[in-house]
Amino acid sequence: MNKSRLEAFSDGVLAIIITIMVLELKTPHGTSLRTLIPLIPVFMSYVLSFIYVGIYWNNHHHMMQLVKKVNGSVLWANLHLLFWLSLFPFATAWMGENHYETWPVVMYGGVMLMASIAYYILVRTLIKLHGQESDVAKAYGKDVKGKISTGIYVFAILSSFISSWIGIFCYILVAAIWFIPDTRVEKTIANE
Amino acid sequence: MNKSRLEAFSDGVLAIIITIMVLELKTPHGTSLRTLIPLIPVFMSYVLSFIYVGIYWNNHHHMMQLVKKVNGSVLWANLHLLFWLSLFPFATAWMGENHYETWPVVMYGGVMLMASIAYYILVRTLIKLHGQESDVAKAYGKDVKGKISTGIYVFAILSSFISSWIGIFCYILVAAIWFIPDTRVEKTIANE
Amino acid sequence: MNKSRLEAFSDGVLAIIITIMVLELKTPHGTSLRTLIPLIPVFMSYVLSFIYVGIYWNNHHHMMQLVKKVNGSVLWANLHLLFWLSLFPFATAWMGENHYETWPVVMYGGVMLMASIAYYILVRTLIKLHGQESDVAKAYGKDVKGKISTGIYVFAILSSFISSWIGIFCYILVAAIWFIPDTRVEKTIANE
Amino acid sequence: MNKSRLEAFSDGVLAIIITIMVLELKTPHGTSLRTLIPLIPVFMSYVLSFIYVGIYWNNHHHMMQLVKKVNGSVLWANLHLLFWLSLFPFATAWMGENHYETWPVVMYGGVMLMASIAYYILVRTLIKLHGQESDVAKAYGKDVKGKISTGIYVFAILSSFISSWIGIFCYILVAAIWFIPDTRVEKTIANE
Repeated sequence: MNKSRLEAFSDGVLAIIITIMVLELKTPHGTSLRTLIPLIPVFMSYVLSFIYVGIYWNNHHHMMQLVKKVNGSVLWANLHLLFWLSLFPFATAWMGENHYETWPVVMYGGVMLMASIAYYILVRTLIKLHGQESDVAKAYGKDVKGKISTGIYVFAILSSFISSWIGIFCYILVAAIWFIPDTRVEKTIANE
Repeated sequence: MNKSRLEAFSDGVLAIIITIMVLELKTPHGTSLRTLIPLIPVFMSYVLSFIYVGIYWNNHHHMMQLVKKVNGSVLWANLHLLFWLSLFPFATAWMGENHYETWPVVMYGGVMLMASIAYYILVRTLIKLHGQESDVAKAYGKDVKGKISTGIYVFAILSSFISSWIGIFCYILVAAIWFIPDTRVEKTIANE
Repeated sequence: MNKSRLEAFSDGVLAIIITIMVLELKTPHGTSLRTLIPLIPVFMSYVLSFIYVGIYWNNHHHMMQLVKKVNGSVLWANLHLLFWLSLFPFATAWMGENHYETWPVVMYGGVMLMASIAYYILVRTLIKLHGQESDVAKAYGKDVKGKISTGIYVFAILSSFISSWIGIFCYILVAAIWFIPDTRVEKTIANE
Repeated sequence: MNKSRLEAFSDGVLAIIITIMVLELKTPHGTSLRTLIPLIPVFMSYVLSFIYVGIYWNNHHHMMQLVKKVNGSVLWANLHLLFWLSLFPFATAWMGENHYETWPVVMYGGVMLMASIAYYILVRTLIKLHGQESDVAKAYGKDVKGKISTGIYVFAILSSFISSWIGIFCYILVAAIWFIPDTRVEKTIANE
């Protein structure tokens, strides 16, 4: 089975998720600059989630370069990842409309955490299919970045009960970690 | 005529269907955990429908591996399937917002039933085009799984008038049957 | 310039148009079968427009089989077609929610008419690029079906002022004419 | 890394942006022709933004013809462009619903300006990757059109405080400049 439809379907879902989130930026009723002020937290949440979906798309794109084949398990592991990503618009809207209160921030972190676990499962499923000597296994074998992110998410969720701003700070931190390009794939390709 | 645009268009429609369903998860107005409680049945319906669309995409993807060519009839049989799948968001929302009452559950089953019949028609149209000796015919000749599913849908619709929970149970059962990977295609490919 | 991105972009837009229309089927507030009755005209409009978008996608798919190259003019002629098709959801919703009253039916016909003219312009632009001896020119040289459709739309719009049901009948008639597969392309391919 | 997924993802996002904008054309409640009058400024804004997204897609399509490879920086520069384009529906709706008052027109210009800067950054990132002797560098080296557009946007934003119609005129002017096909790419291809 070839991977092109899995890529096309994932691209489609991610493109829609990223664009649906912008619908939360509801047209304000006035025309003064002041009517935009209540939209600022909604907008900031949108920016954060846009970057997160961008990171997932970017990483998905990088990883798929090393993938030679897919099977039924990979298709489902990928759908599982898309499921959690599809909850980003909901989590983003709830957080943005409520000025970063505790539970919405916790929920946002929960969706992030589940997405990162789903990504981990997808990586493991791909390594299982390709074998321990494959490029995927070599590039993602240790996955330090992924493990650190997951740890930060757990910390963010717990510390949000003290102050939701610690949670927000953690989410920005993880985004920053991943924004730095993932050199593992490029190294693996270069080493061949 | 080649099959790539049929795949791309189907991927697009399925990606949008799966993502539109999540829009039913309306942002709650409060920020306490309790405000999420009314969303639970909506969320459960979303999960069920997500899995169903995932199954259809998965099966479509598997089947298209064996397809060598398409014609006008196949394009229309595929559009017919997409039509019934496009009603999933409506059926899902009606069922989820009404705590699984009788008619919404019956309607959900009706859409499922029509989609399964549309899939059956698509399979027959493909077999007619490729001939009885083709890979598609060999893999889908008997289609026991498809027939059982259709039977369960009919049973689910009828028994929902006694209790809608029997219907719900049947829908979960069919999802479970299909979740187990469709080994027919992989066997056919392996036998070559 | 190759045609694959034009196909991909058109597939994307058509997939979204076809799926957005279903959002007009708003979830009813009750759970009885009777609450679905007001949705019947909305549903019938959806079915009609789904078939129309299906026909356009089908014809676009057929025509693109004969296209060897594209240029800037073709890209814009294609975008012009997509523009009018993008008004289908609006025209469909207005007609469906108003029980086929005069002006909504006229507007629906107007959008149909403009889309058919846009398709005609796209065909001419493609023929100009490929030359009079090309496959596109041979297959679409006379375009009897296209001219008849355009004529019926004009008649439908005018006669809707007498009774909007004449208009509706005409729209169904044109759909029926096009539903019969377009054998011109298949003949042209077969003749080679 | 190959460019096909970047193209597919961009096509997806642009297709959704262009189609989401039409959702602002809300179904009017009456059935007379008069009920459409309040929609005219919304419709005109839609036409303008449709043309703008069309221009961006067209230019993106042209430019990608000359691109041989992509890297992480290009993926992010492209996402950055898509981010600003994703704000088109919001800016379009705000402007269209408020009869072209000052701040909405300024905001529209601001989004346009940011998108043009993002496009410029994408071009530079691609030139950096391909080298000064590459086709991309030759075709986009001076980028007079891009610089003029950016200048007009700045002028439009400032002059909108005198009269928002100067701003609108400028936006139409830039659209007209770009509507004329971008011959640079075709020349570069022809020269090879």
